[in-house]
Amino acid sequence: MSQNPLHIVILAAGKGTRMYSKLPKVLHEIGGETMVARVIDTAQSLNPQHTIVVIGHGKDQVLERVQRDVVWVEQTEQLGTGHAVKTALPQLPSEGRTLVLYGDVPLIDTATLQALLEAAGDEVGLLTDVLDNPAGYGRIIRENGNVVAIVEEKDADAAQKAVQETNTGILVLPNAKLAGWLNALQSNNAQGEYYLTDLIALANSDGIKVHPVQVRASHLAAGVNNKVQLAELERIFQSEQADALLKAGVTLRDPARFDLRGRLKHGQDVVIDVNVVIEGDVELGDDVEIGAHCVIRNAKIGAGTRIEAFSHLEDCEIGARAHIGPYARLRPNAKLADDVHIGNFVEVKNTTIGQGSKANHLTYLGDAQIGSKTNIGAGTITANYDGVNKYQTIIGDEVRIGSNTVLVAPVTVGNRATTGAGSAITKTCPENKLALARARQTIIEDWVRPEKPAKK
Amino acid sequence: MSQNPLHIVILAAGKGTRMYSKLPKVLHEIGGETMVARVIDTAQSLNPQHTIVVIGHGKDQVLERVQRDVVWVEQTEQLGTGHAVKTALPQLPSEGRTLVLYGDVPLIDTATLQALLEAAGDEVGLLTDVLDNPAGYGRIIRENGNVVAIVEEKDADAAQKAVQETNTGILVLPNAKLAGWLNALQSNNAQGEYYLTDLIALANSDGIKVHPVQVRASHLAAGVNNKVQLAELERIFQSEQADALLKAGVTLRDPARFDLRGRLKHGQDVVIDVNVVIEGDVELGDDVEIGAHCVIRNAKIGAGTRIEAFSHLEDCEIGARAHIGPYARLRPNAKLADDVHIGNFVEVKNTTIGQGSKANHLTYLGDAQIGSKTNIGAGTITANYDGVNKYQTIIGDEVRIGSNTVLVAPVTVGNRATTGAGSAITKTCPENKLALARARQTIIEDWVRPEKPAKK
Amino acid sequence: MSQNPLHIVILAAGKGTRMYSKLPKVLHEIGGETMVARVIDTAQSLNPQHTIVVIGHGKDQVLERVQRDVVWVEQTEQLGTGHAVKTALPQLPSEGRTLVLYGDVPLIDTATLQALLEAAGDEVGLLTDVLDNPAGYGRIIRENGNVVAIVEEKDADAAQKAVQETNTGILVLPNAKLAGWLNALQSNNAQGEYYLTDLIALANSDGIKVHPVQVRASHLAAGVNNKVQLAELERIFQSEQADALLKAGVTLRDPARFDLRGRLKHGQDVVIDVNVVIEGDVELGDDVEIGAHCVIRNAKIGAGTRIEAFSHLEDCEIGARAHIGPYARLRPNAKLADDVHIGNFVEVKNTTIGQGSKANHLTYLGDAQIGSKTNIGAGTITANYDGVNKYQTIIGDEVRIGSNTVLVAPVTVGNRATTGAGSAITKTCPENKLALARARQTIIEDWVRPEKPAKK
Repeated sequence: MSQNPLHIVILAAGKGTRMYSKLPKVLHEIGGETMVARVIDTAQSLNPQHTIVVIGHGKDQVLERVQRDVVWVEQTEQLGTGHAVKTALPQLPSEGRTLVLYGDVPLIDTATLQALLEAAGDEVGLLTDVLDNPAGYGRIIRENGNVVAIVEEKDADAAQKAVQETNTGILVLPNAKLAGWLNALQSNNAQGEYYLTDLIALANSDGIKVHPVQVRASHLAAGVNNKVQLAELERIFQSEQADALLKAGVTLRDPARFDLRGRLKHGQDVVIDVNVVIEGDVELGDDVEIGAHCVIRNAKIGAGTRIEAFSHLEDCEIGARAHIGPYARLRPNAKLADDVHIGNFVEVKNTTIGQGSKANHLTYLGDAQIGSKTNIGAGTITANYDGVNKYQTIIGDEVRIGSNTVLVAPVTVGNRATTGAGSAITKTCPENKLALARARQTIIEDWVRPEKPAKK
Repeated sequence: MSQNPLHIVILAAGKGTRMYSKLPKVLHEIGGETMVARVIDTAQSLNPQHTIVVIGHGKDQVLERVQRDVVWVEQTEQLGTGHAVKTALPQLPSEGRTLVLYGDVPLIDTATLQALLEAAGDEVGLLTDVLDNPAGYGRIIRENGNVVAIVEEKDADAAQKAVQETNTGILVLPNAKLAGWLNALQSNNAQGEYYLTDLIALANSDGIKVHPVQVRASHLAAGVNNKVQLAELERIFQSEQADALLKAGVTLRDPARFDLRGRLKHGQDVVIDVNVVIEGDVELGDDVEIGAHCVIRNAKIGAGTRIEAFSHLEDCEIGARAHIGPYARLRPNAKLADDVHIGNFVEVKNTTIGQGSKANHLTYLGDAQIGSKTNIGAGTITANYDGVNKYQTIIGDEVRIGSNTVLVAPVTVGNRATTGAGSAITKTCPENKLALARARQTIIEDWVRPEKPAKK
Repeated sequence: MSQNPLHIVILAAGKGTRMYSKLPKVLHEIGGETMVARVIDTAQSLNPQHTIVVIGHGKDQVLERVQRDVVWVEQTEQLGTGHAVKTALPQLPSEGRTLVLYGDVPLIDTATLQALLEAAGDEVGLLTDVLDNPAGYGRIIRENGNVVAIVEEKDADAAQKAVQETNTGILVLPNAKLAGWLNALQSNNAQGEYYLTDLIALANSDGIKVHPVQVRASHLAAGVNNKVQLAELERIFQSEQADALLKAGVTLRDPARFDLRGRLKHGQDVVIDVNVVIEGDVELGDDVEIGAHCVIRNAKIGAGTRIEAFSHLEDCEIGARAHIGPYARLRPNAKLADDVHIGNFVEVKNTTIGQGSKANHLTYLGDAQIGSKTNIGAGTITANYDGVNKYQTIIGDEVRIGSNTVLVAPVTVGNRATTGAGSAITKTCPENKLALARARQTIIEDWVRPEKPAKK
């Protein structure tokens, strides 16, 4: 491969009118990441000297959302792809070569770009795509096998229209020629824009060879102009991720009903049932099973743990051999040790739970520290909030919290203490003792209860 | 187009034996609406003078379920399509033309029918479909390009069987000829039925030209005879709806996992995650986000509101910038103002909640009026039902309801009042005061709790 | 068909390296059942004299998981398919014929095997598959229409590589020849293994005819070597099950989003919404409707009952006309009579509920017996567990349990008794009486509640 230093220009200034969105086009997401960030990350996998991103529409939104170490260049007017690259010229040295990518062509991959750079050498490289139906795309015109021009649909004659090899827009150019060529571009076309595609003819005039490389699958070079295309690429992206997980040994009950919007680390014998959505950074130990219809965002789950259907986990850690759900909601900073059981309709937030403890039914645990082998009865509520401040509930080891208990924080329940069902616990429960805070039962003997009038 | 007045006859009398259902075939649903109602609505989009629906099997069920302003005609015996149209003859004037549609061909659209009417002029129009595999369908027999007959599969010779153009059954006929032709139909065929298809040959005998129009996609003319076909058309219908929403700028994370059974109005930048089911009339403001696995039926949701995963909303209104779910259930007549937060395992029924109020955990709010900036503690229950009557709970502004509180209606909590955690509130809580209704905590010093026998 | 007694050998000794699993390959599941158990069940549908299963890797796991009445034979070294069948030789009599199946070819069906046996007569039968892209598969070499050999990809010349008819590995052999042929196999190939495919050439040498039968769909003979293939066959299997249910009249809103991992018995007019997962043995009466996103495992549901979205039912029985969910969780041994209502965030375990009774909100019912026409108020909890023992709660007919009640078992509430909202019921409530166990409400007049400091 050429040892010429590599520079990359990413065009990301467009509005995306047909997205019908307040967001600039390149900020729409594929797999939970903005399209332009994906392209930047792929660009940087090539270790370029510079990555220059040309922005325009929604510039401030892009700068805010895309935290990447690149050179940002503003294109104040959108006068075509040629004009956009010209905007980046001041950042480009006159030696080396420049790869042009697009912030709305999100699935381009490193291998394809490496092949293009290799083919280009120190001349021009052009990524092409052979389409069954090329209508609408710029056609690659070859003479004696050499690429001599790109002809747009509207300028193509019948023979040219029959050409199935099309322009993807991705190309690599020698910096020594770049300024000259860009300055030579004309805007005397229907749109009044400066087109990068015209560089191919200029290269030919200069005797610089154009090396075409065919993309191995159309989606790698597919652009997004509307939500239909965004959804299509999302599904292709998801399908490829699912395929990679299957090949690595993860069991997916239905690869077409799995979404990963982030990174999944997994052990051996992980089983994921249908319709699971995974976001952010998730780590699943050996033998973890995820039931149907779960949503998991930034979680670390230990070996042998089973997450039952309808669970919603976010920013939490779970130990080994735990049993979670169904309908468990773990919120940020829930930290569960090994062998913990969290059952249905239970919410855990900013709470640590020790080994082997259980909260199986209709419970809210917020801002609590719970020891090991403790049982939290059904319907337990930590009253952690007085309307202004949040307070801690401390529960020891081997405690038994009775059903329908409210623990009014700040409050402490000592090791091996018990609280009576139906109690409002407002003060310390000493170790080993039973705390009760409920009224004595009375029977109203002469009670006449409301009844529906007898039907006539 | 012909200015002849238009009449439409919809055949909807069949039983649908292979549906294996107590419901007559035309009452099975596509996109949450009965097939026959869809056909009636499409028919009426053409502004006919009359729409006549021929019913038979399950007549009473059809009349009860399909509330449409049409002329209902009963066919007491099912003797074929020709016989069915004949049943409608008394309702048809002798001038104008008659379009024949089918209650089990649900996806026929206005544009196709307009093209057919235009092509037909004052003669006969016939909708045809070219199939890769035409086996089983009536073939369109042309001579010198003119349609001269329809030959059924069983009567077709080898050359006729090779014809790929098939009969859809949808046709338009001149009323002046209709009675004569229908009376000329013979039932001397295998089924002993009167077939509408024989009208094509009769038209040719009369020197009336038959104008064929090819349907642009097979599903538009596809009939439903069993649940396999019903499911196929359901998915095509859903796919087309999803496509239209994407084109209008709605983000659907997976268009193949989205169901709309009704009407969706939406603002800009609406995002809908996977597996959402929308029914009835739903309106989503700008920037509304719907999480995965939600079910939403007849709801109006304000701009900027986020509905988290697993929420179930029905007949409710939500203001702007609200945060709902996960696992929120809003039931009929829940009316939430702007900035309201409803959290997990919270049910709201026939209740208004003022701006900025929150009920975040394990709560049931029924028949209540809640002011603004009020906080409803975890585990709060409105006891609105004495077994016979339902009563109201009135809660003011800036109230703090303590955790695990039961509010025994009818009851009022004044502005800025507080209730203690674990209280049963049975009487008015005055403004600014604290109401407590819980027992004092006691410690049982000599408590010996049950323990599992030590393992030997 | 030949009256020769049938023996079946199932090869199930492989490790399945590319599954990346601790489980031996044949224990991976399709439709909730291990692959090898599926093959055994299909084998036994042919009523063979013996079914011999050759196991090796993970032998103990297989014996533990697959409870089937077969002859288990261990292959201690994996030296090829020929060697594996040879391991079974001592179990095979010298008359009759032997069908060879594979524990990792899970979707082979009875009809295909019957056709193969019929074609084979007393000679050799070979199941073949014609593939668009046969690369990698053993090609069927015919001379004058007769199958004379199977040539592996690597040994094939250009003409042989062009053959699209491939070997599935499934074959039937005459026992009289089997021992001789197996002993004649050589392992002088690249893998150093004994290949069953070489028997075809040996049969030809012996003048025994090979009768090829083409499989009617590739998936019937498809093997599983990795999780990609496992997922593919899972979806094909699910799609075929869904199709069979549709044809039998079940309405599936989306056949591609339906999972059945077991057996579903159903009445007429059953409607199943999207993303329902059914496991084990489930029986649905007439007119049962299952809402979206439900998980149902081993349940019997009576006619006219409606299960709302997000419900999770396991090992339970529900009567007719009941209304369950959304978000209902029925756990093992929940037995609900007719007309019972179970609402949102309600868990029922080991509990019987009589006709017409209701528990509609945020409730846990464990180890209870509840009569008919009883209403369980919102937020009711049965405290059935003292940390060591589980106790019963007995509730009579026409009882009204107040909201936010905890019933401390063992405890009894008599017929037509009422409990006050917010009570902890610890003792018997006699018939017709009102039991109260809550504190009197007090108002703290001089309460100064915490407030956020005013913002400057």
